[in-house]
Amino acid sequence: MPRYTKKSFPVGNIRRFLEPGPIVMVSSAFKGRRDIMTMGWHMVAEFSPSLIACFIWDQNDSQELIRRSKQCVINIPEVSIIDQTVAVGNSHGSEGDKFEKIGLTAVDAKQVDAPMIGECFANFECKLVDTSWVNKHSIFVLECVYAHVATRPTYPKTFHYRGEGLFMISGKTISRRKLFRPEML
Amino acid sequence: MPRYTKKSFPVGNIRRFLEPGPIVMVSSAFKGRRDIMTMGWHMVAEFSPSLIACFIWDQNDSQELIRRSKQCVINIPEVSIIDQTVAVGNSHGSEGDKFEKIGLTAVDAKQVDAPMIGECFANFECKLVDTSWVNKHSIFVLECVYAHVATRPTYPKTFHYRGEGLFMISGKTISRRKLFRPEML
Repeated sequence: MPRYTKKSFPVGNIRRFLEPGPIVMVSSAFKGRRDIMTMGWHMVAEFSPSLIACFIWDQNDSQELIRRSKQCVINIPEVSIIDQTVAVGNSHGSEGDKFEKIGLTAVDAKQVDAPMIGECFANFECKLVDTSWVNKHSIFVLECVYAHVATRPTYPKTFHYRGEGLFMISGKTISRRKLFRPEML
Repeated sequence: MPRYTKKSFPVGNIRRFLEPGPIVMVSSAFKGRRDIMTMGWHMVAEFSPSLIACFIWDQNDSQELIRRSKQCVINIPEVSIIDQTVAVGNSHGSEGDKFEKIGLTAVDAKQVDAPMIGECFANFECKLVDTSWVNKHSIFVLECVYAHVATRPTYPKTFHYRGEGLFMISGKTISRRKLFRPEML
């Protein structure tokens, strides 16, 4: 299992890790219950405040915990824990605590009561800020209030879901900075 | 410039191409004006109907065309046209027609009046279905009503934005099907 040294990271810059579109794990807790879900339907929605929109189906056990506690953590796994992440997505909260069952470490967050997943490259502590589309579209808006990011590697080796059990692994990072207008960077 | 042979593709399966999180180009037209914008803030939001939520800033010329025409095309470029895509994102509609200026081919769509970009791997014809969050969050919900996808390659080599002029190029696709419950596939 990966071990990381993490540092506080500016919440306005977390798009670096979210905008490429990785599968993430969302951890939450409410009144002694805790859960983890996998999530592929999410997007950055603002830099400041640092907003993230995401789709969380009402059949998912985590939805109730997030709605009631009004907070959660978005955790970014690297491909070294893809099997554990798939296990999270293919088990139900009703079958027992996923941290224990799958062997993931719950770490206390700074600004929210939801547990962070220690084995993930990054952990974004989030508060729920808009639920007005939950009944209509199952879409939540979260605000990242504190971000923890591993000091190495610079760019995590993330995995991205194609459906049907297939994942795209992130490849190399290239620069096109010279083609950008300064104000677009 | 890439040339593709494309076929109709089931709209309920376009998550295969969108969920990994590539940069896309959005093309639109209204009353003789047309435009292209780049977009990295989007997510799948339902299989059936085939919904996509996306963030389109009100300072973008395309926003007005999409709001007024109530339709657009989401085009997925491969890395072979990354420079053209960056050029789209770093120019203004007011500076002239982007198709002509950048050398992209406008192709008639089947179900919408917006032009498709011929040089892209896939083209998703979309209708605007929910604008109730446009003023609050600049978030639109689109429904893909017709999809055109290149017959080859099976998985496009897409590029994914990290901000600051840096892009992650999609890597290999791997299967974890054996770890999925049948109902999760």
